[in-house]
Amino acid sequence: MTAQATTGGHTPEVAGVRAIVFDTFGTVVDWRSGVTRDLADWGRERGVQADWAALADAWRARYAPGLGEVRDGTLPWTILDDLHRRSLLQVIDDAGLPALSPADQDRLVGAWHRLDPWPDAAPGLTRLRATHLIGPLSNGNTSLLVDLARHGGLPWDVVLGSDVYRHYKPDAETYLGFCGYFRFEPAQVMLAAAHPADLDAARALGLRTAYLPRPLEHGPGRAFQQAEGPWDITATDIEDLAGRMGT
Amino acid sequence: MTAQATTGGHTPEVAGVRAIVFDTFGTVVDWRSGVTRDLADWGRERGVQADWAALADAWRARYAPGLGEVRDGTLPWTILDDLHRRSLLQVIDDAGLPALSPADQDRLVGAWHRLDPWPDAAPGLTRLRATHLIGPLSNGNTSLLVDLARHGGLPWDVVLGSDVYRHYKPDAETYLGFCGYFRFEPAQVMLAAAHPADLDAARALGLRTAYLPRPLEHGPGRAFQQAEGPWDITATDIEDLAGRMGT
Repeated sequence: MTAQATTGGHTPEVAGVRAIVFDTFGTVVDWRSGVTRDLADWGRERGVQADWAALADAWRARYAPGLGEVRDGTLPWTILDDLHRRSLLQVIDDAGLPALSPADQDRLVGAWHRLDPWPDAAPGLTRLRATHLIGPLSNGNTSLLVDLARHGGLPWDVVLGSDVYRHYKPDAETYLGFCGYFRFEPAQVMLAAAHPADLDAARALGLRTAYLPRPLEHGPGRAFQQAEGPWDITATDIEDLAGRMGT
Repeated sequence: MTAQATTGGHTPEVAGVRAIVFDTFGTVVDWRSGVTRDLADWGRERGVQADWAALADAWRARYAPGLGEVRDGTLPWTILDDLHRRSLLQVIDDAGLPALSPADQDRLVGAWHRLDPWPDAAPGLTRLRATHLIGPLSNGNTSLLVDLARHGGLPWDVVLGSDVYRHYKPDAETYLGFCGYFRFEPAQVMLAAAHPADLDAARALGLRTAYLPRPLEHGPGRAFQQAEGPWDITATDIEDLAGRMGT
């Protein structure tokens, strides 16, 4: 157990963790509500009508395939903002909506920079920061993650986006890249994420893992099946994680 | 002028600046007092006597030559912590002191992670952050800069150390590397620094510049000649800079 990890006065459930890094889209911020809201605001101003939540879902559905094209070398390194722009044009076209001006593209791609955090995120992170170094470990680019932090009051110690590693999760270069900047052993770093595949990749590399199920990630009407896995912790939210980690 | 830059309610002296980045050693933190104090504490515990301020000065005197060896390719990329370790062994040897154990080396190299900020730094940065994105632009490695921020309550939005760029200032890759992560034009970024050579390099690349003379950087007894140069701003400290930039 590190000296750091006892500052909160309680014994953490997982000892020896120096840093806790967080998946961001879905885990820390509510991408679906934010993107739907910004699309709807834009549509209202432009007099365009559509099922904006469905459009947000369609946009997000192109996220993993886009990352995959970078990961397998089909695309050269491309930051997430640019992948979002490409997939936005596709979903706008698929929906039969009029083509977007560059300024409208900028505005809508920027929606991903203005997502609200889940209500537990800022208070939970503030508690965790007293005992652990905290940061995002996200496929977002650094400028996007910094904008989310400023928008949502997320008190990160360090923000290293995927453009620093020039790799997307679940590539090992992201998880181990973070460890490398701090010369932490993988077991000194915990990944907190809402997505089992992300946790699996981190765990295979020796990181500690905290599962934070987010039943509302895909909207209030969706069935949600909580995953089971060999995570070190399963927490109900980031405030719960803070308590479990001794703060 | 950006919308951001008017949030403070006053007109900034320099318009269009989105981000202000800060040289760190000497500009934001008082390296000489902190290193001298940690050396003296260590010496007292070990029963070793020396002129600790002179040792701190000798250690710092090896800083620029070490960076130079990396910049000119004599050394491969080496983070500042490791350059500090190498130069520490040299100055300990030069001073005729007993060789350091690895644990003592770790402790003393860590002194650079525990430097106190100048008194104006945290309040000034907190003001500036309301209107501008702020971060260090330092030759320190990311982990060192994060430790300084945690130690001194420096409210950086983003901490990208020299190990992200794998270059040391005044290499262009550092100044332009920061701009690149945010897709800012150089004129949208201001460097604040106590050292004219740093400002000269940034200005040559199109960044805006703020000179922050720190008469006490090399100790209270030293003669100090304030520099003159074509800086956009010369400020007495970071609080003064905050006011001049409209916050």
